[in-house]
Amino acid sequence: MDDIIYGKNSVLEALVSGEREINKILISKNIHSDVKLNKIKELAKENGIVFQFVAKEKFQPYAEYNHQGIIAQISPVKYYDIDEFLENSYENKSMVILDGVEDSHNLGAIIRTCVCAGVEAIVIPFRRNVQVNSVVEKTSAGAVNHIKIIKVNSLVNAVQKLKNNNWWIIATDASANDNYFDVNYNDMNFAVIMGAEHAGVSKSLLKLADYTVKIPMLRKFNSLNVSNALSAIIFETVRQKLSNIKK
Amino acid sequence: MDDIIYGKNSVLEALVSGEREINKILISKNIHSDVKLNKIKELAKENGIVFQFVAKEKFQPYAEYNHQGIIAQISPVKYYDIDEFLENSYENKSMVILDGVEDSHNLGAIIRTCVCAGVEAIVIPFRRNVQVNSVVEKTSAGAVNHIKIIKVNSLVNAVQKLKNNNWWIIATDASANDNYFDVNYNDMNFAVIMGAEHAGVSKSLLKLADYTVKIPMLRKFNSLNVSNALSAIIFETVRQKLSNIKK
Repeated sequence: MDDIIYGKNSVLEALVSGEREINKILISKNIHSDVKLNKIKELAKENGIVFQFVAKEKFQPYAEYNHQGIIAQISPVKYYDIDEFLENSYENKSMVILDGVEDSHNLGAIIRTCVCAGVEAIVIPFRRNVQVNSVVEKTSAGAVNHIKIIKVNSLVNAVQKLKNNNWWIIATDASANDNYFDVNYNDMNFAVIMGAEHAGVSKSLLKLADYTVKIPMLRKFNSLNVSNALSAIIFETVRQKLSNIKK
Repeated sequence: MDDIIYGKNSVLEALVSGEREINKILISKNIHSDVKLNKIKELAKENGIVFQFVAKEKFQPYAEYNHQGIIAQISPVKYYDIDEFLENSYENKSMVILDGVEDSHNLGAIIRTCVCAGVEAIVIPFRRNVQVNSVVEKTSAGAVNHIKIIKVNSLVNAVQKLKNNNWWIIATDASANDNYFDVNYNDMNFAVIMGAEHAGVSKSLLKLADYTVKIPMLRKFNSLNVSNALSAIIFETVRQKLSNIKK
């Protein structure tokens, strides 16, 4: 089970102190509104933390806690801020941006792959993407502690900021003309955007990409798991880097 | 839940007819030995089907069935025979051999990757490797029906047969000198052996390999998930194949 903080006072205290990283706040639909609850919602909004009003059945797994109809799910890692990240200078570094990866096991596998391949950071949005929870931490085999996870409110804004800082943006799209290995990944900072398992990368992000690439399929079966797709691409960038050093 | 056949008569009938593909037979330790049970064990041995004597608690999930202490787990696919496979001639084809992959989700992801990358067949051993079950089928997103799954009693014998038929054997090993992208995969039939998540490829198989390769790690974190490791290697072979055609 995920780490949680429960009860109005504790959740409010966590928001005020800002010491714990909150993935999401669940509020029972049956809870009575009062000053504390309003303060919680206000602080959550300010800090870009998602809160959801849910049926009381959602609190079943937490029955043993005196939760008073409010629970904050805590992340096992501290998320990074994109502005803070960009204050440092980078050279020939890579980054992975996830646009709608919903499965915890996939995120865990992606984090492992990224750490092995020397990726600098992974960017995830607050909404419509799985957050780093205890399943992700476990599936990542501890890799989650060896990479920067950047959480952002808007992927479009984040990509724009990266571009302003001379990062090159590579988006994956099944209908692209170029293959992922046609790009020269050396001598630049680049970010690879991976899309949702079914919908792919959002159009608004595809528009911002410097390169759009596909993974060529040798059979008429276009359904690679997102972590396996990323692995193919990210290790091609490793191959190019190591081949470049040899020259 | 997996497809099952239950009760002495039905399991015996399935073994005699050979029409259903049996992954494993579970026999309760409390069952009384008789002519039928002896016949079941005899036929299972003959056909290389694993049978296990288990505590009656193992039958809990099947409580609704009148199983009489015996259950056969059925595969959703028909397995291929290696001799049958090798009777056909192959040119520039690839194959993946799994030596101790225990997780159903990993096998499912590997099958998806192999189908997308045009791999001809996947070889798994009867023992110490997950079989194709309903979780594998689901995780593979149906890919399991688009590739030949070959089940063998001995991986060593299978690899020897492949070598005798001019297949080249590439084994992965974290301590190898060469990187996987140093091998030229064009103009040959080749089989890539992937090892167990922790133990790696068995020594007896490493000895038979024509090439031993590693995936270079850019951080001191050597723990790639097996399906992601395979994806990096197998799409490098695709890259080489497509680059070769262009020339």
